[in-house]
Amino acid sequence: MSGNTFGQLFCVTTFGESHGAAIGCVVDGCPPGMELSAADMQHDLDRRKPGTSRHVTQRKEEDQVEILSGVFEGRTTGTPIALLIRNTDQRSQDYGKIAEQFRPGHADFTYWHKYGRRDHRGGGRSSARLTAPAVAAAAIAKKWLHLQYGMRVRGHLSQMGEIPIPFVSWDVVEENPFFVPNTAIIPQLEAYLDAIRKDRDSVGAKVRVVAENVPLGLGEPLYDKLDADIAWAMMGINAVKGVEIGAGFASVAQRGSVHGDEMTRQGFRTNNAGGVLGGISSGQDIEVSIAIKPTSSIATPRRSLDTSGNEIEVVTTGRHDPCVGIRATPIAEAMLALVLMDHALRHRAQCGEPKRNVDVFDPT
Amino acid sequence: MSGNTFGQLFCVTTFGESHGAAIGCVVDGCPPGMELSAADMQHDLDRRKPGTSRHVTQRKEEDQVEILSGVFEGRTTGTPIALLIRNTDQRSQDYGKIAEQFRPGHADFTYWHKYGRRDHRGGGRSSARLTAPAVAAAAIAKKWLHLQYGMRVRGHLSQMGEIPIPFVSWDVVEENPFFVPNTAIIPQLEAYLDAIRKDRDSVGAKVRVVAENVPLGLGEPLYDKLDADIAWAMMGINAVKGVEIGAGFASVAQRGSVHGDEMTRQGFRTNNAGGVLGGISSGQDIEVSIAIKPTSSIATPRRSLDTSGNEIEVVTTGRHDPCVGIRATPIAEAMLALVLMDHALRHRAQCGEPKRNVDVFDPT
Amino acid sequence: MSGNTFGQLFCVTTFGESHGAAIGCVVDGCPPGMELSAADMQHDLDRRKPGTSRHVTQRKEEDQVEILSGVFEGRTTGTPIALLIRNTDQRSQDYGKIAEQFRPGHADFTYWHKYGRRDHRGGGRSSARLTAPAVAAAAIAKKWLHLQYGMRVRGHLSQMGEIPIPFVSWDVVEENPFFVPNTAIIPQLEAYLDAIRKDRDSVGAKVRVVAENVPLGLGEPLYDKLDADIAWAMMGINAVKGVEIGAGFASVAQRGSVHGDEMTRQGFRTNNAGGVLGGISSGQDIEVSIAIKPTSSIATPRRSLDTSGNEIEVVTTGRHDPCVGIRATPIAEAMLALVLMDHALRHRAQCGEPKRNVDVFDPT
Amino acid sequence: MSGNTFGQLFCVTTFGESHGAAIGCVVDGCPPGMELSAADMQHDLDRRKPGTSRHVTQRKEEDQVEILSGVFEGRTTGTPIALLIRNTDQRSQDYGKIAEQFRPGHADFTYWHKYGRRDHRGGGRSSARLTAPAVAAAAIAKKWLHLQYGMRVRGHLSQMGEIPIPFVSWDVVEENPFFVPNTAIIPQLEAYLDAIRKDRDSVGAKVRVVAENVPLGLGEPLYDKLDADIAWAMMGINAVKGVEIGAGFASVAQRGSVHGDEMTRQGFRTNNAGGVLGGISSGQDIEVSIAIKPTSSIATPRRSLDTSGNEIEVVTTGRHDPCVGIRATPIAEAMLALVLMDHALRHRAQCGEPKRNVDVFDPT
Repeated sequence: MSGNTFGQLFCVTTFGESHGAAIGCVVDGCPPGMELSAADMQHDLDRRKPGTSRHVTQRKEEDQVEILSGVFEGRTTGTPIALLIRNTDQRSQDYGKIAEQFRPGHADFTYWHKYGRRDHRGGGRSSARLTAPAVAAAAIAKKWLHLQYGMRVRGHLSQMGEIPIPFVSWDVVEENPFFVPNTAIIPQLEAYLDAIRKDRDSVGAKVRVVAENVPLGLGEPLYDKLDADIAWAMMGINAVKGVEIGAGFASVAQRGSVHGDEMTRQGFRTNNAGGVLGGISSGQDIEVSIAIKPTSSIATPRRSLDTSGNEIEVVTTGRHDPCVGIRATPIAEAMLALVLMDHALRHRAQCGEPKRNVDVFDPT
Repeated sequence: MSGNTFGQLFCVTTFGESHGAAIGCVVDGCPPGMELSAADMQHDLDRRKPGTSRHVTQRKEEDQVEILSGVFEGRTTGTPIALLIRNTDQRSQDYGKIAEQFRPGHADFTYWHKYGRRDHRGGGRSSARLTAPAVAAAAIAKKWLHLQYGMRVRGHLSQMGEIPIPFVSWDVVEENPFFVPNTAIIPQLEAYLDAIRKDRDSVGAKVRVVAENVPLGLGEPLYDKLDADIAWAMMGINAVKGVEIGAGFASVAQRGSVHGDEMTRQGFRTNNAGGVLGGISSGQDIEVSIAIKPTSSIATPRRSLDTSGNEIEVVTTGRHDPCVGIRATPIAEAMLALVLMDHALRHRAQCGEPKRNVDVFDPT
Repeated sequence: MSGNTFGQLFCVTTFGESHGAAIGCVVDGCPPGMELSAADMQHDLDRRKPGTSRHVTQRKEEDQVEILSGVFEGRTTGTPIALLIRNTDQRSQDYGKIAEQFRPGHADFTYWHKYGRRDHRGGGRSSARLTAPAVAAAAIAKKWLHLQYGMRVRGHLSQMGEIPIPFVSWDVVEENPFFVPNTAIIPQLEAYLDAIRKDRDSVGAKVRVVAENVPLGLGEPLYDKLDADIAWAMMGINAVKGVEIGAGFASVAQRGSVHGDEMTRQGFRTNNAGGVLGGISSGQDIEVSIAIKPTSSIATPRRSLDTSGNEIEVVTTGRHDPCVGIRATPIAEAMLALVLMDHALRHRAQCGEPKRNVDVFDPT
Repeated sequence: MSGNTFGQLFCVTTFGESHGAAIGCVVDGCPPGMELSAADMQHDLDRRKPGTSRHVTQRKEEDQVEILSGVFEGRTTGTPIALLIRNTDQRSQDYGKIAEQFRPGHADFTYWHKYGRRDHRGGGRSSARLTAPAVAAAAIAKKWLHLQYGMRVRGHLSQMGEIPIPFVSWDVVEENPFFVPNTAIIPQLEAYLDAIRKDRDSVGAKVRVVAENVPLGLGEPLYDKLDADIAWAMMGINAVKGVEIGAGFASVAQRGSVHGDEMTRQGFRTNNAGGVLGGISSGQDIEVSIAIKPTSSIATPRRSLDTSGNEIEVVTTGRHDPCVGIRATPIAEAMLALVLMDHALRHRAQCGEPKRNVDVFDPT
């Protein structure tokens, strides 16, 4: 199957490079009859897009999406939905000098040796810009999952560099440029980022994503488990180096008497499982955390090679996020929504409509 | 595509339940002409099998594999290789009492609600016993990757519960029942496990897996990245709750000036990337760590429900590993080998034979 | 995806060679909860198996199928159903002399050059014996489609060599070894075959397959059309050289005013479309015809090469059907059932349960 | 997998409707490093496009293709190649009256009942206009196959209605609007079509496609056979009702002593197999014929239903080909090229570069 396709039944095939003519995707398998317009996707695209605060890259891209197909008289027809986003602010002259450099931490070296060539402009296909089509596609999934099951997928920054960010409330996440669930911590984060930038450096981050009202039974055990597919989707996001479900790495030091989530008639008493047991959703919230490495593009000189094999010193200027993790929040939500959508359709195929938590528990 | 198939070109479709007639798999896409016999698989099957020490489940299964097809006159023919392992020590009477119980931390609840029924005997399909066919299939992949590229895939236990296990040497890993690279720590681990067992409890673990001599260029960026597929394969192993590549979660607090691996003519100076840049192998060692939750089957009473919705108390007796993480080592190696094999074939399809590190660097 | 897998959601992965240890398949994606036993498959296996009359190969194979997994307490569990058929009457000494010959019309030459080797015993994997696992898998599909939609898939021989076989009645098809819907013609066919055999020759045939009570709406237009997938499945049967849907090649000389099937409130007035419009089932009967070439194994000397490139003369003795088309009838039914099953599940995933003809027309 | 994707490794995902904003496709898996520009695709797009003679639909579409991605500095990069064709001459007012009619022979009825709605404008997604993206994608495949193996894929009309068209020469096919290999017959065809049009009717056709210099060994036997995939691709073309490989339906009445192609040191003596044995290419020319039904859109009144279930009379006016088979020639070539490309890559993955006929035979 195509390496650039996401999903088995809700299939998203993306295309494009950071500074090419356009980026976009084809969404195949969407159920027919759902109201859909570009506005449904624009909200998440705007959350993801660059230039929204001084703490992220200043590249200006409107990320206006055009629906080319698959929607007729305002509703999905069941045929492929093609989405197109033209690249406008390309400024590729910024990148000319890196055409023959392998920037440390970047995909330059590996694309070059895999394909024998690469589109170096802005990272070409390996740019985080390519998350935009996935975010647009996921907005379709989010809408359907919400209409069909009341599902909600949300994320927030949970750590920036050394600073853990205690969860206070979902309500404020959308109101600050850091996607943090805690307004009190924002001044500290701003000071921290300013210091990082002054050091011509960057820093990593951690993002937590949660899906609520997930039906029971999603996941194809051995091998297309729900948590396996989530791990795949998350690790595939640019700069992600680790994925946890539920208790994650904390489960290494846990005892079985603590980790195993007990059940009562009202439901599960804890959620160390993160909503997945044996690769199948339990109806609890899906809980995922990801580790995002520090931005590779920094203004500090680093040792590297050029495409001819000479040793060089690389200093990356241009417009870059000092902490790419910030903008990862809507992207991680998107990936989780896409996985859940695909598995909802897969479940329907084999088993019919899935059960809901309310069919099983008595939460009153 | 089939939920029970692993891989796109080197495809492993498994079948079977813990206490059914047999378990096994069909391996499709193996290159023709390689010498292959059951003996090639038996070594890894023996490493994985239960009953090898008093610290793992005492179930006795010989795990003798029979090659049903795809090998003729001692060599692979290019047609599907079917592998069959008969279940012999089923003792399913041990499990009769749990037919109507949902054991905390187990897949009982989710299988029941997904499919409307379940084979409860020994966990049915959700049992870790189902890793045996994958281990057998991966032995084929390991052999081919070694013959073709000199690749080697090895793993070891790196933490048990609260006890980190410092790496000393690969040499001793095969010589102890804990798969630890450090013989000095073994008495401490034994005492620790004895205490856990006395508490009628279990504990988690961490396993590290490394692939050496990986060609450059493996991975299909967006979305079938090499690291994404590794995360998928690892998170799909029973009881795994977290996956890290390279620096993993440590990269959250790293600076970009530390994380990005510099290059010289002799190669990379560090390996925070874990051997993957932009979803494509860099020729460095692939470095993966996984978190394994504590065994869910413990002799301590836990609250739960039965299939009729009544609240019950569950005490799991029977033969269980107090730390399932121990036996996860050969399984994690197997998963990594399967992913690398699949991507080696995918690379050949689009780009021809991949480059090797020695084609690019001058390590002398 | 695996070249040896049939279907996207109802996935059948076969394995085995004509004279290896065993043949079989893994059926993945079967809906859970359906009663299933080996007896459900044995009827169609018996219809397909060799040695049932003097007009087909005299090889004796009981084709007893063993269910290894996926069925518990008499019902499907939703996990993979592995089916195993041991080869018993192998007599591979018959084939020793052809190890180094390329028999005209056989796959010897192409397997050899594709894979660099081949299992020559009885044709190895290219033997029609490998249709047995597909027939077994299709019996599962047939049962589910019948229970769910009342669907029925039936076939008959419609031409043998130069002799067209007028359709009289389905009722007699099962009662004669030629699968003909016309008992009056049987003496003529027997005399014809006797003459062919006396000539040390063989002859082609045509088979017609029909599916009744097919729901409306099955098929994924562009590119997984229902008729395209049927053509794929049929052309993949050993010895098939042509496939027609509905009017087929007769439509070349038809006028549009004749071909296009008119509709009234009671339904379609004709069925030139063969039950498929725009790649989607119309609710009419699916009508398919296939052309089967004459058996390649004949006792008449033919010119060929050996594996060293020398010119040789090949005379095939052994036990062979003079008209392989006869036994193709249950196989063609099986292939059609597998395609319809897969598309029924695919439709459910995207669109929910399909409509039935009775929801649309008023056939009273 | 996505229903709108063609191929396993050379994957073409199309999108668009006849009168929507645009049509196009994403081509994933193209080998990197090949020179490519829009001009490479324009020749085949021009051969396919409407309005080229008075015997085909007079809709005017320039079918200018824009490459949005995957090509950098004039060469393929190995990343997805997105192709966009804007619809310009939509005139959808022509179709307003059919919004609520099910035209006989069209996909109106089945799309409506599958999806609960349809884009009726010009047939929406079921329009033959959607073959344009596939033709563009196939031009990439044709170029690579020619550069890599010297392969050539060509087609011609071989029958129009009752009139068989004797093959004279490939040279003239491109020089006449009927794609016939025989200039002497053109006056007869023109008179025939004029009469058909005067009758307000349409007629079927037969097209033959041939691939030369096909490597040995392409095809994955059981089930992704080369001939099965060709049948799938051909039957998926709009209006196709039958597919033959090699002797096709003529093989029904052939004897085995005639059908089986003998071999000498110089190669095969005949080609009844059509270049495929056991699902694998033999190195002979691939020979395919397809039956194309008469155009469904005719000006003669036909009985049908509307979307409310009322009986109506349908008369289709607008711009339609009286014999859609004419324009099927470049489309059939495209489908064959796409299948061969996909299988060439699949072969490389498992077996390395394929053999050529010249490696095996001595044709001097």
